[in-house]
Amino acid sequence: MDLNLTEKQVSSENVFNGVLLHVYKDIIELPNGDNSVREYIKHQGAVAVVPVTDKNEIIAVKQYRYPIGRVTVEIPAGKLDKGETPLEGAIRELSEETGITSDDITYLGGLYPSVAYTDEIIHMYMAKNLVYGTSHTDDDEFIDVVKIPIDEFVKKIMDGEILDSKTQAAVLKTARLLGIK
Amino acid sequence: MDLNLTEKQVSSENVFNGVLLHVYKDIIELPNGDNSVREYIKHQGAVAVVPVTDKNEIIAVKQYRYPIGRVTVEIPAGKLDKGETPLEGAIRELSEETGITSDDITYLGGLYPSVAYTDEIIHMYMAKNLVYGTSHTDDDEFIDVVKIPIDEFVKKIMDGEILDSKTQAAVLKTARLLGIK
Repeated sequence: MDLNLTEKQVSSENVFNGVLLHVYKDIIELPNGDNSVREYIKHQGAVAVVPVTDKNEIIAVKQYRYPIGRVTVEIPAGKLDKGETPLEGAIRELSEETGITSDDITYLGGLYPSVAYTDEIIHMYMAKNLVYGTSHTDDDEFIDVVKIPIDEFVKKIMDGEILDSKTQAAVLKTARLLGIK
Repeated sequence: MDLNLTEKQVSSENVFNGVLLHVYKDIIELPNGDNSVREYIKHQGAVAVVPVTDKNEIIAVKQYRYPIGRVTVEIPAGKLDKGETPLEGAIRELSEETGITSDDITYLGGLYPSVAYTDEIIHMYMAKNLVYGTSHTDDDEFIDVVKIPIDEFVKKIMDGEILDSKTQAAVLKTARLLGIK
């Protein structure tokens, strides 16, 4: 542990409690003894899954993302439910958004989307041996399911057409694992 | 544009204005005509740079990240200053955090860290032909500069030891561009 870098909490205030966002403002002590402010979100954590077909295609979802005002192409993902393990959440989200189940799921590691201002961690998985069923999204969730060959998906990421962080990281990891050029 | 997915703003409220975070709560109309709530952060945008040495090493920074309570290894990065272009911001942040300047900078594309609740976009770059000078971090910024061979850096990402999203995406893109196994 790099003690010379560590910041210590002096006080903590919950400045906004919304439906989704829980925002805190802490006074902290810097390594040099001065005080500073850290504002951040407390999040329950999330999961994301790269579903890979037998033909090396990725099943992805198109979705309107209000904060950025555009439709994105993303891998299936969502927040963890209370008491759920990351693997259980991944299986649930994959089924809800695409109707897919899988008995061959590999952990791809964690991802902190934004270390500066949220403690959210996204646990990433690759799913193979896909079995197709019926999706059952939440009432306020509108998505289109799409199928894209992995090599084409990687090209879109390299060309800057796929901008979502978890999707970039998880698909590039998957491509590397599967030896996709 | 996928009109069947688009959400429309009904009203918008600025629910928290901090030093760093500006939080909004909007009422929106869903594609099916129902109303829902979207809570999100408005952000000025950021930049991140993968500095690559002539020996295929990456210059990275170790930094304590208060929201997650741990020291991370990240590529040099930071928020855009007002009126600054992304390239100008990348050159400035690289110099501030590592003392490095470069005349060979390649755009790696954008990255939305968290499309569900922030409009932040991070513009990613690769820098080569590095010239070393003196770093000059902000008063409340405590970082250690480290040098890691790219192949070892990629292995750390694949093994889940490097968890920051922009670092995972930008380094995996860089490795792919440079043909690093």
